[in-house]
Amino acid sequence: MNCAIITIGNEILMGKTINTNLAYLGSELAKQGISVEYALTVKDELNAIKQALKDTWGKYKIVITTGGLGPTEDDLTKSAISDFFGKKQHWDENIWEHIQKMFAFRKMPLPETNRSQAMVPDDFIPLRNNLGTAPGLFYQEGEFLFFALQGVPSEMKHTFETQIKDIITKNCPNAKPLFIKTLRTYSIAESRLAELFTLSDLPKGVSLAWLPQIGRVDLRFYGTDAKKVEEAVNKALLIIKPYVWGYDDESPAEILLALLLKNFYTLSVAESCSGGLVQKLITDIPGSSNSFLGGVIAYSNSLKKNLLKVSETILETEGAVSESCALQMAEGIKLLTKSTCSISVTGIAGPNGGTAEKPVGMVCFGFIAAEKHWSKKQFFTGDREIIRIKAADFAILTLIQHLQGRNNN
Amino acid sequence: MNCAIITIGNEILMGKTINTNLAYLGSELAKQGISVEYALTVKDELNAIKQALKDTWGKYKIVITTGGLGPTEDDLTKSAISDFFGKKQHWDENIWEHIQKMFAFRKMPLPETNRSQAMVPDDFIPLRNNLGTAPGLFYQEGEFLFFALQGVPSEMKHTFETQIKDIITKNCPNAKPLFIKTLRTYSIAESRLAELFTLSDLPKGVSLAWLPQIGRVDLRFYGTDAKKVEEAVNKALLIIKPYVWGYDDESPAEILLALLLKNFYTLSVAESCSGGLVQKLITDIPGSSNSFLGGVIAYSNSLKKNLLKVSETILETEGAVSESCALQMAEGIKLLTKSTCSISVTGIAGPNGGTAEKPVGMVCFGFIAAEKHWSKKQFFTGDREIIRIKAADFAILTLIQHLQGRNNN
Repeated sequence: MNCAIITIGNEILMGKTINTNLAYLGSELAKQGISVEYALTVKDELNAIKQALKDTWGKYKIVITTGGLGPTEDDLTKSAISDFFGKKQHWDENIWEHIQKMFAFRKMPLPETNRSQAMVPDDFIPLRNNLGTAPGLFYQEGEFLFFALQGVPSEMKHTFETQIKDIITKNCPNAKPLFIKTLRTYSIAESRLAELFTLSDLPKGVSLAWLPQIGRVDLRFYGTDAKKVEEAVNKALLIIKPYVWGYDDESPAEILLALLLKNFYTLSVAESCSGGLVQKLITDIPGSSNSFLGGVIAYSNSLKKNLLKVSETILETEGAVSESCALQMAEGIKLLTKSTCSISVTGIAGPNGGTAEKPVGMVCFGFIAAEKHWSKKQFFTGDREIIRIKAADFAILTLIQHLQGRNNN
Repeated sequence: MNCAIITIGNEILMGKTINTNLAYLGSELAKQGISVEYALTVKDELNAIKQALKDTWGKYKIVITTGGLGPTEDDLTKSAISDFFGKKQHWDENIWEHIQKMFAFRKMPLPETNRSQAMVPDDFIPLRNNLGTAPGLFYQEGEFLFFALQGVPSEMKHTFETQIKDIITKNCPNAKPLFIKTLRTYSIAESRLAELFTLSDLPKGVSLAWLPQIGRVDLRFYGTDAKKVEEAVNKALLIIKPYVWGYDDESPAEILLALLLKNFYTLSVAESCSGGLVQKLITDIPGSSNSFLGGVIAYSNSLKKNLLKVSETILETEGAVSESCALQMAEGIKLLTKSTCSISVTGIAGPNGGTAEKPVGMVCFGFIAAEKHWSKKQFFTGDREIIRIKAADFAILTLIQHLQGRNNN
């Protein structure tokens, strides 16, 4: 059961938009047992789109396009489809009513341009889009399925979720969902992991991918036989358990929040160089307010002093980027919020502000978990963005490791 | 001067990794006058990679692969290249020395697996990689150029920046850099924008793309003739100036920081539902500490009360998600940090916590800009992530509009 995905849009090829739609579709289709084997991106040009259809239609069980369904003149997907499949277009009054309603709700005047969105190629079934004005399209010829989806990610996801999933399930009764299990590791190099397992060690039908992330590596085991995948994972865990901080798609913040809840702990955070990123990652998770009380972004020294009670002496002698300052920040925010645990981050994210003694990438952390207080100093490589991501990740993962009882700092 | 990009990796097709490399390469190549016309993504399989090379080599002036150069068994790019171009591989002692140094610096043992990374196909030139162990590769045949790049974004960018740019400049002396100008708009629908301009209004050789973002639309004008692009932009501005909040790649946070600096203003932020996102976006910008003092994430009511001095009465009668609470939060954080300006955000990001009166997506904002205090209430659609992004964006854009003197709230 294979699939090809055609992304339509100059903005993707010009690098102005990142193609997140492919990732979403790849992952959702894998869950349904459909393997995306080929993906291509073409320009907003009639011939390029038609060539892409020619390259894929009939070769893959499912072909999906995203993009080019909007109301503007560079939206050519529908014309390309009509040409390629040899269909005329007809007016669909239901779609037009929906478009009228959407504009009335937003209290905006309805431009004439939107009329083009109510045209449907003959023999194609329009797919309802509650989030926008462009409907998706579905077409079937023998065993082959074709879908045209929106480029706007939320609308594309909505159409896929509410309608396409069911159509695929109905038409692909023999699809075997892929069973995927990911081990998420920390503090070990990719090539060292590769030494510990080789692909030939795996049970037949189980695949393994090493996925380097920023500052760490994920190991993905997958196959259609759940039992065999489990077996491979358990074998792997015997060797690398100490490096595994989590499984599957759980984010570090999710795991931390679960551990806090389990221990009836609350958390507060004081950030300097990470500027809110740690708290953003934590509050990304619905229900984070059960354990997370809040925190401070003490970007200026005066906030560190007045709000977090970092001592003048430490700021003068050791500076704001020091383990002592980090520890006082963690203590300050714990006191201020009356939390059980706290995290602090202070460092030099760059590109400026580094010195020989305290280079860009040096970050100090303070941690409190109930009775235990400790600090850490790390040197991260990368640009400002990468250093901030690594620092926020390190802060959360360090508290996780402590709460899992896996280190004594 | 055209180019095709081949992305290699099951993780991209399975949706476990988002292809940010394509966006980077598309944008950098456009600046050099190279147009990426075709992009495809194939599995980590020898035949799939070879087929992709066959589909593109000789058809495009430049072919670039990313991914599959790592030390593990699923890294097959080098084998595919050797097969396709009919080259043997040889040992490169310089690369091996570099790999040894990298591991020594990280204080990690050097696994045998990494030896494969020191092999180079005959007639290929290895490209130095200071950030990792996998070198890039360069090959030339007549006018055609081939590059193999790493999948890890930072390493890929480093190799491109330091070496490939120069090779392309030298080999494509006639490439005409694309001149791109983006108008970033707010509070106007895409189809309404499309009514205001049509592609036929544009000077010949200037293209226009409408790019819907989360909650707003960007208009990109581009072409090889800078003067004509400028002309088109100026013509557009006559009509839509009131909706334009910024240009090109400037983020809202960058524009806000520049406006604050110009006015000698300082900023603080108090966030509830956005949980640090506003401050994260602001501190993403190097030098943000010149104007941004810091802030509080008052996730719990007790922090709103104790730290930000929101009155008990307001919390009880109007609730934490109210314009009155938002205004007091903005006042509280201004007082606490002694800033000139402040922003506050309090709302219901969902998925839970909504009521008929205060549904998920309702967000209240408080603003202070020197002597002026005001509040706003908005209803955003989307999931938790989208609502938080729209809210953070709205907060920053509203203060921008005020500082630009473009609304009287």
